Amino acid sequence: MIDFDRYLEQEKERVNQALERCLPVSGPTIIIEAMRYSLAAGGKRLRPIITLATAETLGANSEEVIEVACAVELIHTYSLIHDDLPAMDDSDLRRGKPSCHCMFGEAVAILAGDALLTLAFEVLARYGLEPGRERAALLISAELAQAAGAEGMIGGQVFDLHAEGSVLSTSELELMNGMKTGALFRGAVRVGALAANASPEQLQILSGYAAFLGLAFQIVDDLLNHVGTQADLGKPAGSDQIRFKATYPALIGVEASRKRAGELCNTAIEHLDRLDRPADRLRDLARRLVFRTT
Amino acid sequence: MIDFDRYLEQEKERVNQALERCLPVSGPTIIIEAMRYSLAAGGKRLRPIITLATAETLGANSEEVIEVACAVELIHTYSLIHDDLPAMDDSDLRRGKPSCHCMFGEAVAILAGDALLTLAFEVLARYGLEPGRERAALLISAELAQAAGAEGMIGGQVFDLHAEGSVLSTSELELMNGMKTGALFRGAVRVGALAANASPEQLQILSGYAAFLGLAFQIVDDLLNHVGTQADLGKPAGSDQIRFKATYPALIGVEASRKRAGELCNTAIEHLDRLDRPADRLRDLARRLVFRTT
Repeated sequence: MIDFDRYLEQEKERVNQALERCLPVSGPTIIIEAMRYSLAAGGKRLRPIITLATAETLGANSEEVIEVACAVELIHTYSLIHDDLPAMDDSDLRRGKPSCHCMFGEAVAILAGDALLTLAFEVLARYGLEPGRERAALLISAELAQAAGAEGMIGGQVFDLHAEGSVLSTSELELMNGMKTGALFRGAVRVGALAANASPEQLQILSGYAAFLGLAFQIVDDLLNHVGTQADLGKPAGSDQIRFKATYPALIGVEASRKRAGELCNTAIEHLDRLDRPADRLRDLARRLVFRTT
Repeated sequence: MIDFDRYLEQEKERVNQALERCLPVSGPTIIIEAMRYSLAAGGKRLRPIITLATAETLGANSEEVIEVACAVELIHTYSLIHDDLPAMDDSDLRRGKPSCHCMFGEAVAILAGDALLTLAFEVLARYGLEPGRERAALLISAELAQAAGAEGMIGGQVFDLHAEGSVLSTSELELMNGMKTGALFRGAVRVGALAANASPEQLQILSGYAAFLGLAFQIVDDLLNHVGTQADLGKPAGSDQIRFKATYPALIGVEASRKRAGELCNTAIEHLDRLDRPADRLRDLARRLVFRTT
């Protein structure tokens, strides 16, 4: 697994450099700083790496797809800033550092989130203006907007806010997670495929892989939050419990959650057997995402 | 002017119907309701109307451009929701009705704004997937993202927040307004032109028109806020004064502000003389925007 660790580290560094190039060059310093601060707050870049790996699996040169991967991470980062706001999850820490609103104030944090979301679509539009990419870029932009919007990630966050303190069934929890985390996860895979001009069949297979992996990923997040320590997580351990949030460990217990995550991961990987391309990297990524400890 | 009033009313109705068609069909009810509430809160639809009028001036069928006009209004509406938040301008009223966060709570208001912004880019991407529109749609998406982002509208809002209570020079105030209001105003004109496949010269002339008109528009807004009554404005009259916001009337007085708005309007209109198309509608719109009383 040393080679795979090195691969993840290299891809992360590549995404970090590309993200830095995406930031606007003019505009008020404080907003650019707030955007950079949240982007640089030590994320693992799992979503953009999975976008790049998907495109490579379908034969694309991942250097050509790096802006698409950046758009995914810009949207993910904006969502973290807004989720942490006092009116939302009210979280003072993110990845072990003060959250954006604690560093820059609530107004700038709201605007920095808005600006990152806006920037994602600017990056995609400019990516698409290279000849030959127009149609793929529009499909990617529509895909990410739908994944991030009221029918996807934002809708999931609304469900989550209203579910606080109430008991959900496992299927309600899976529906909520499917929107809140799963939609952007699935989007990250699908836009990698679209950037590589996937066939409809390839797109369908990879969407199935992504849907199951996204559910597994959320369960592991819940588990790490449940049993982790503050130092491991970079946020107060058990903070979901304190706020009575609906999570897998709370609903079905730690052992059953672990088992469910493993099953979903296997189902995700089985989808790849039907793909007409070697997909070991996507298999390795799935296992790493599900059997991680941080 | 009766005909022009009827034209404005018809265009507004056309935009309203198209906006309703843009709203997502699935997702949690409360977020769709919050999006619809803020969209339906009685705006004059000046920005989308100016997008349609610009496209028509260059010979486009405005029915073909209606989604582009909607994207402009979706972005404008999101910005109003976020501007009204307690952490920002803390405004309880908007267009005479409770603002979004007063109706739906702060969390849903933040998310409804996010969802409208996201929807704007989804609408543009789907617009662009019609054959023959790909390149124009990408240029439009990049244009609106830049106009709305950290270098434009969001940047202007950051300046505004930090300028509260301090004395600005006229040129600082014009720079701030140029970003806060002017950028999206200019964007509304430019995307209308791009949707009509404007020549570079047409685009340049119309950008000049839009830049001067945007500045005039903001001065008139400041004036109406300064001297208006609460019933006219739908928000507490003089609320900018109470918060010591930098405005034209505060800086150079009411009469000088009126004169400056008139001059800027004339300069805007003069730009149109160089256009190779009849542009009476854009002239009428400019006069109406500047010599309005609400």
